[in-house]
Amino acid sequence: MKILITNDDGILAPGLEALIQSADGLGELYVVAPETAQSAAAHSITLTEPLICRYVQLPDGTSGCSVAGRPADCVKLAMTELLPQRPDLVISGINAGGNVGVDVLYSGTVAAALEAAFFGVPAVAISLVIRSKVDFDYAQTAARKVLDLLLAKNLLVPGRVLNVNLPPCELGEPRGIKVVRQSNRAWDDHYERRTDPRGRLYFWLDTAGSGKNSGYQEDTDEHAIGEGYISITPLSHDLTDTNDLASLKACLS
Amino acid sequence: MKILITNDDGILAPGLEALIQSADGLGELYVVAPETAQSAAAHSITLTEPLICRYVQLPDGTSGCSVAGRPADCVKLAMTELLPQRPDLVISGINAGGNVGVDVLYSGTVAAALEAAFFGVPAVAISLVIRSKVDFDYAQTAARKVLDLLLAKNLLVPGRVLNVNLPPCELGEPRGIKVVRQSNRAWDDHYERRTDPRGRLYFWLDTAGSGKNSGYQEDTDEHAIGEGYISITPLSHDLTDTNDLASLKACLS
Repeated sequence: MKILITNDDGILAPGLEALIQSADGLGELYVVAPETAQSAAAHSITLTEPLICRYVQLPDGTSGCSVAGRPADCVKLAMTELLPQRPDLVISGINAGGNVGVDVLYSGTVAAALEAAFFGVPAVAISLVIRSKVDFDYAQTAARKVLDLLLAKNLLVPGRVLNVNLPPCELGEPRGIKVVRQSNRAWDDHYERRTDPRGRLYFWLDTAGSGKNSGYQEDTDEHAIGEGYISITPLSHDLTDTNDLASLKACLS
Repeated sequence: MKILITNDDGILAPGLEALIQSADGLGELYVVAPETAQSAAAHSITLTEPLICRYVQLPDGTSGCSVAGRPADCVKLAMTELLPQRPDLVISGINAGGNVGVDVLYSGTVAAALEAAFFGVPAVAISLVIRSKVDFDYAQTAARKVLDLLLAKNLLVPGRVLNVNLPPCELGEPRGIKVVRQSNRAWDDHYERRTDPRGRLYFWLDTAGSGKNSGYQEDTDEHAIGEGYISITPLSHDLTDTNDLASLKACLS
């Protein structure tokens, strides 16, 4: 099995190294990842600039290819130019930070997995929810258990995109796996308003001061993580609101 | 009615001016848009850099606020800091280029509308599909007809996000409106491989040489546009693949 490994935290991120260790022995690994951190890059791609690629030595001594672009660029280039053939699986992560709820839309980690689906390749995005402690040894072990299970049950099929989140390490050994839908609770964003030395107005997103709003939902990724479970959510790249489609059709026909 | 006007082509883009003209008289307009072009920015946001805002004079003599960030940043800032109160409607566009099919995922125009939904504000993304001719007078008139219809039928309700695409002006007056799902046909990407003067490998995305693959689907946005209709697709920010959720649950429980 040929496996493309990518992420959005950049090719030298410890989470990528953890993922490489995690996937060790599962197949032939190819690493193509962004040169620099791309958190919240979402599904952005590079249209008008050249994508510089470099073969670099990774901390574990193997080599990978860095791309001066976005996570989705990495997947496109890996699929079309950099790999000797299409991989059988794409794994993106391990992201330093959860990608649950509406954060799925901002996530470069998830976008890389969705991009793989366009090529008909099964994909898994893996993220570690962080409270304060970051323990990639824990994440690596948990991620491997999930991958082994998904492979054993033949659940990695073309076009399927699985968004896996690992509960924060403070909660101890995960209590199990829950297959859940994405929470839709929005952020209550806060910004700090400042003026620069030239008198220009600017804002900083105050991530510490921003919280999720009150619409907490049971049976979602957020809920499962809070309970200490690994969450798995199957994702679609079709944004059509199918619930709304028929009623809107009726109104406009 | 207070209306936030934004886009992803930048605050001085002709499509933004066309949208302002298009919405003239519908309510009080507030323009907050990216300082520079943000095509294919998708739902990326700015986490670690300051967002510089400037009040600028627009080509029509009114004023707007530019944000040195992404389309979704513009909506977040407009909602929380820049507008005197929450708007009743967000309109994003008119994008110079269609946002149909999988391009919906790459689109900053659409992301701005989806971001509005997080705030419970109805949103419409409007894009002009371009073959070779670009006629924003045509787009402006067509967009206004759509907005008038949606308002007359009370279809702009909180949380709803409508992705509107206008057929290329070469096809003449639109034949009507079709409410359709998003096409899922992927791109067949092509890159040009080059070497820079320092011997570094780089790639250009060859948009002219890339085409859609063969999985053309009837009753989709792509299909409606090809037939000369305005396409409207209701979008959801919940990426859960609900078709896959139950079977995956059964396999992993």
